[in-house]
Amino acid sequence: MAKFIVIGERISATAPSINKALAERDPEPILKRAKQQLDAGATYLDLNIGPAESDGEEIMKWGVELLQSNFDNVPIALDTANMKAIEAGIAVYNRAKGKPIVNSADAAGRIGYVDLAAANDAIVIALCNGEGIAANNDERMMYCQTLLERGLMAGMSEQDLWFDPLFLVTKGMQDKQMEILECIEMISQMGLNSTGGLSNNSNGMPKHIRPIMDATMVAMAMTKGLTSAIVNPNDLRLMETIKSVDVIKNNTLYADSYLEL
Amino acid sequence: MAKFIVIGERISATAPSINKALAERDPEPILKRAKQQLDAGATYLDLNIGPAESDGEEIMKWGVELLQSNFDNVPIALDTANMKAIEAGIAVYNRAKGKPIVNSADAAGRIGYVDLAAANDAIVIALCNGEGIAANNDERMMYCQTLLERGLMAGMSEQDLWFDPLFLVTKGMQDKQMEILECIEMISQMGLNSTGGLSNNSNGMPKHIRPIMDATMVAMAMTKGLTSAIVNPNDLRLMETIKSVDVIKNNTLYADSYLEL
Repeated sequence: MAKFIVIGERISATAPSINKALAERDPEPILKRAKQQLDAGATYLDLNIGPAESDGEEIMKWGVELLQSNFDNVPIALDTANMKAIEAGIAVYNRAKGKPIVNSADAAGRIGYVDLAAANDAIVIALCNGEGIAANNDERMMYCQTLLERGLMAGMSEQDLWFDPLFLVTKGMQDKQMEILECIEMISQMGLNSTGGLSNNSNGMPKHIRPIMDATMVAMAMTKGLTSAIVNPNDLRLMETIKSVDVIKNNTLYADSYLEL
Repeated sequence: MAKFIVIGERISATAPSINKALAERDPEPILKRAKQQLDAGATYLDLNIGPAESDGEEIMKWGVELLQSNFDNVPIALDTANMKAIEAGIAVYNRAKGKPIVNSADAAGRIGYVDLAAANDAIVIALCNGEGIAANNDERMMYCQTLLERGLMAGMSEQDLWFDPLFLVTKGMQDKQMEILECIEMISQMGLNSTGGLSNNSNGMPKHIRPIMDATMVAMAMTKGLTSAIVNPNDLRLMETIKSVDVIKNNTLYADSYLEL
């Protein structure tokens, strides 16, 4: 099996300092977070520029070129609701280290993002979701099927759709957590890739608990076959756990130094 | 599902201080480790008196009474190769907080421990093992079947056989780790209980890595259905992980204070 893929989530317009840096085209705050995440073991960097309705194309191009020129063509997940911005970013994207990821499609209003990925030979994160949150795994797998067919019809490889079951908040939806894990298992048994914003499970919990819950959840999800996640790579406990699962699953060879690699 | 059962492993004749305390009937070192383990969340305490060929019956009786009188009839796993010592311990054992556990039977020379458990209405840890280490899951499940039949023929409830797949050392047998986890899954799918000396997986690793590997392994094993383990409850990271998996599996109700409970 391939090593688990960590998509670093910290370059996001939801963070005020990054939002400001994107608006002002100020490289420093962005390069700083990029370096921190790559040093900690991220493979992909998510570049979330927000809705970016007016100048999204310029921002995305600037961001992609900034990151790739400073970090040896680091592969990037292009994250915005502005489809033209994603296309603009892909136009300047260097594929030497991996295809761009389109973040994200769903099986309802955002299904066009699958077509966008197909037209640009990109990977797409495909939320197993329609209008509103799926009620159960029958619905999740129905949405998964819809998205898969859409991608295959458009000529994509099935490996380029990364299905996201949507992690749910444990505080409030505790009894749904195993259902999400079972969804991951079903996706895995179909031979498909998966991903997701895993830390949503610990949303609303006290700050000292979140890394504990997130590390536990990632070990459980990887046991069920999760192949990547959109997470904070600077959460040390989380990354230690991901590397350890990769050892136990024999995805990477054990060495006494494996946590430092 | 029931909460995961932690069997504290630290009262063991393999530790020189405990070996001496058992030989000299010195309560203090034993009570100290018992309290540490119970405070950290152990349910059962393992009482490993070693081979104890000459005075095993006296030692086991003394140990069981010492622990149960000081800790409100704490349930105990009676751990020795001396069968008479186990019987002597059970004779003075108070069942108010749970049946005694006989530690342990296998499918070869130690199969008589199943009969011993049956005759004394005890739980038995049943190693999925014959002569030498099982080569694969076909063998493990064959031994499991042998042990299960032996117990059922002797009138045991199938829930009182706790099957131990034997965790293997990752350094050296890295490619066998998923096989062990799959064995746990098969046992779980049969509706049976399981246990094991989980920290064997991290044997020989640098000291700072072991809690990381053990916590990762317990999350993976619990995801596959492991229902108990013989571990060090004073490994904080391990216990935090066990409690977190129990939350995600909905075995215990989430509260912001769940790690302190």
